[in-house]
Amino acid sequence: MHLSDLPTPALILDRQRVRANTDEMRARVHAHGVALRPHAKTAKSAEVARIAVGDKGDALAVSTLREASYFLSQGFTDLIYAVCISPDKLDMSAALATRGADLKIITDNFAVAGAISNHDGNHRVLIEIDCGEHRTGVAADSSDLTELAVTVERSGRSKIMGVLTHAGHSYATRSPDAAAAVAEAERVAAVTAGQRLRNAGFETPIISVGSTPTATHGVTFDGVTEVRPGVYVFQDMFQVGIGSCCINAVALSVLASVIASNSERRTVMLDAGGLALSKDRSTAGLDFDVGFGQIADLSGVPFPGLRVNSVHQEHGEVFVEDPAQFADLTIGSKIRVFPNHACMTSAAYEAYNVVDGGVEVIDQWRRCNGW
Amino acid sequence: MHLSDLPTPALILDRQRVRANTDEMRARVHAHGVALRPHAKTAKSAEVARIAVGDKGDALAVSTLREASYFLSQGFTDLIYAVCISPDKLDMSAALATRGADLKIITDNFAVAGAISNHDGNHRVLIEIDCGEHRTGVAADSSDLTELAVTVERSGRSKIMGVLTHAGHSYATRSPDAAAAVAEAERVAAVTAGQRLRNAGFETPIISVGSTPTATHGVTFDGVTEVRPGVYVFQDMFQVGIGSCCINAVALSVLASVIASNSERRTVMLDAGGLALSKDRSTAGLDFDVGFGQIADLSGVPFPGLRVNSVHQEHGEVFVEDPAQFADLTIGSKIRVFPNHACMTSAAYEAYNVVDGGVEVIDQWRRCNGW
Repeated sequence: MHLSDLPTPALILDRQRVRANTDEMRARVHAHGVALRPHAKTAKSAEVARIAVGDKGDALAVSTLREASYFLSQGFTDLIYAVCISPDKLDMSAALATRGADLKIITDNFAVAGAISNHDGNHRVLIEIDCGEHRTGVAADSSDLTELAVTVERSGRSKIMGVLTHAGHSYATRSPDAAAAVAEAERVAAVTAGQRLRNAGFETPIISVGSTPTATHGVTFDGVTEVRPGVYVFQDMFQVGIGSCCINAVALSVLASVIASNSERRTVMLDAGGLALSKDRSTAGLDFDVGFGQIADLSGVPFPGLRVNSVHQEHGEVFVEDPAQFADLTIGSKIRVFPNHACMTSAAYEAYNVVDGGVEVIDQWRRCNGW
Repeated sequence: MHLSDLPTPALILDRQRVRANTDEMRARVHAHGVALRPHAKTAKSAEVARIAVGDKGDALAVSTLREASYFLSQGFTDLIYAVCISPDKLDMSAALATRGADLKIITDNFAVAGAISNHDGNHRVLIEIDCGEHRTGVAADSSDLTELAVTVERSGRSKIMGVLTHAGHSYATRSPDAAAAVAEAERVAAVTAGQRLRNAGFETPIISVGSTPTATHGVTFDGVTEVRPGVYVFQDMFQVGIGSCCINAVALSVLASVIASNSERRTVMLDAGGLALSKDRSTAGLDFDVGFGQIADLSGVPFPGLRVNSVHQEHGEVFVEDPAQFADLTIGSKIRVFPNHACMTSAAYEAYNVVDGGVEVIDQWRRCNGW
C-alpha cells in the first residue's frame, strides 16, 4: 500500500531511520563498554524494542506497569519500571515477577521503601538519585540513601539492586557541550551513590543513567553499568532543536490531509489537530519553533517555513507565508508533520504504519497505550 | 468497587454531574424551541450520548468518521461529521450511508464540493459558514455560498441540507455578556446564510450552530434549527474559568496517586503526567490558571491552591505552597485532578470509571478513540 492510500490522520514510522538511530546509539554506548537499556516509553512497541536492543539484548526501561506486562509477554524479561512506584502497585509488580519478569522497581522515599519491605513479594529495587533535575530522587550524598536501602531490605525479602538517575534537565541544554556537562553530573551522581551503597555493604550491580541528550553527548560513562535513553529511537523536532540530531533522523511523522484552504487569510487547514499531534509545544522556547509540527511532503522532505501554527481538536491550521506554497497544499493533498515530541504524539494512535525509507507501507506495528 | 481500589492513573466520570449538565442544556435549548445535537467528540461514548440526547433523541455531531461508524453501530443514525471532509473520505462516508446512517458532511470549498458532486455516493451536505472564528467556513454574505451549493448538487446525486457554523471564538470570551454577543453573531451568520440558500431555491432544513459558551449564554436562537455544544457534557477547568459553569459541574477527573514527596522543595509527585492529563494549558491565559489541572480529594472536593504545576510523561509535579497541605498528600494517597480540557484529557483513556456522585465505581464505559 502506498502512503497516500492511508486514511488520515495516521501515524507513520520510518524503519530505516529507527534502525539508523538505534544502531548509532547502540554502537556509541557499547564503545564505552556500557550496556544499553532503551526506554520503551517512546515507542511502546515490541517491534521497535527488538530493533533497539539489537541481537542479544532483552533489557528495557518502561514507564508503566502495563508496558512491563506487554513487553514481558513479548519476551523481554530484564525490565526497569523507571517511575517511583506507589504502594498499591506492589501487587502488580510482584505478579509480573511471578510471570518471569526480572523487574526492578524504583523509589526515593521511606514510606514506599517500608511498604516494599513489608510486602510479601520479593522485589528488586533501585534507589532513585536526583542528579540535578530536582524532580524525584535523593541526593547522591544524602544520608537517606543508605537508610533507604536498609529499609528496603529490612524484612529480608526484597533486595537492593543499585541506583538509577535521569538527567531530565538535559532537555534544557542548547549545545553539545552543555549536554555533556549535564551528562557528567548525571554520571558522577549515579557513580557516587552506587559507590556509597557498595561501601555500606550492598551489592549494587546496577548503576543506571540516561536521557537522549546525555547519552548522545556524554564524554565518559566510567563507573556506570547502563544507559537508558528513550526518544532517540524516533527523535523529534525538539531533539533537532536542542542538537541531539538532525531533521533527517526524525523517524516519526503524522500523515494528514489538506481539508480547507483560504488564500485571503493565507491559511490551510489539516485534519491533524490537537489530538493527532498532541498539544506539546516544547519547541516554543527554542530558536527553532515549529508550532505544533514541521510540515513535509509525502516523501518526508520538509517544506521550509511551513508548520502547524495552531490546533483545535481535529484541525491543524497552517499559515502560508509564501503564497507560492499553496501549490503544494491543494485540497486533498497529503502531507507529513514531524511532531515536537514523539512520545506525546504517538500516544494518540493504536499503531504505526511502517515505511522503509520510501512511501510504501510495509507493515503495521501495534502500540501498548494507557495504564 | 471503591475509587481507591482502582489502579492509577484512571479516568473518573461522575454520572450525576453528566446528567445535571445534559439535563440543563437540553432544557435550555428546548425552551428556545430548538433541537439539541450534542457533539460527541468530548465523550466519544454511547452511554454518555444516550444521557445527552434524552429519551427521544438520536442526533449527534461527530469529529471523526470512526465516531460516526461507532455511534451508528450503537443506534444513532442522525449524524453530522462536523469537520470539513477531504475527498478521499467520501468512500467512507458513502459506506456509512449504505449502513443506514443519515450522515451529513460539511465543506467550505469548491474542490471538495466538486468531488462530492462527482462521487458516486448520495451525500447530504452542509455548507460551513465562518461566523467570526476564521478557522474554516465561507462568510454568510459570500457569493461562494450559493455557488458551492450549486456545485454540490450539479450531478444530481448529492443534496444540500443546510448550513453549519461553530463560534469557536466564544472560547476567547471572559463573561456571559461577551459570550452572548458571540452567540448572536453565530446565530445571525447561520440564519443569514440559510436564508440565502433558501432564496436560491435550496430546501435548507438544517441551520446548525453551537459551542458550549454560546449555547449556554445565547439569548435567542430564532431561525436556528439546532444547537451543537460539546464539552458541556463534562465541563472542565477552562469552562469554569470562562464562566460556562462552576467547578461543581465538572464531571471528569483523573484519579492519581502520590508517588514521591519532598518537603524541602515543597513538591509532591503524582503518577499522572503529560499523557494522563494532556499537555493542554488552556487556563494559562485566564485569571484562573490551574496549571495542568486542579487537585481535589478522593471525593472530588478541591484543595484550594493545589494544582499540577508541571508535567513529564508519567509525572505530575505539584508545588505545595502551604506545608500543612502535605498532610493531604502523603505517599500512596489517591487524589483527583480536574483537567483543563476534558476532550484532550479523556482521549488518553480507553474507558471511564463511572461514579454516581460518590466514591463507588458503578460501571465502566468504553470510548471510541483514534481515527
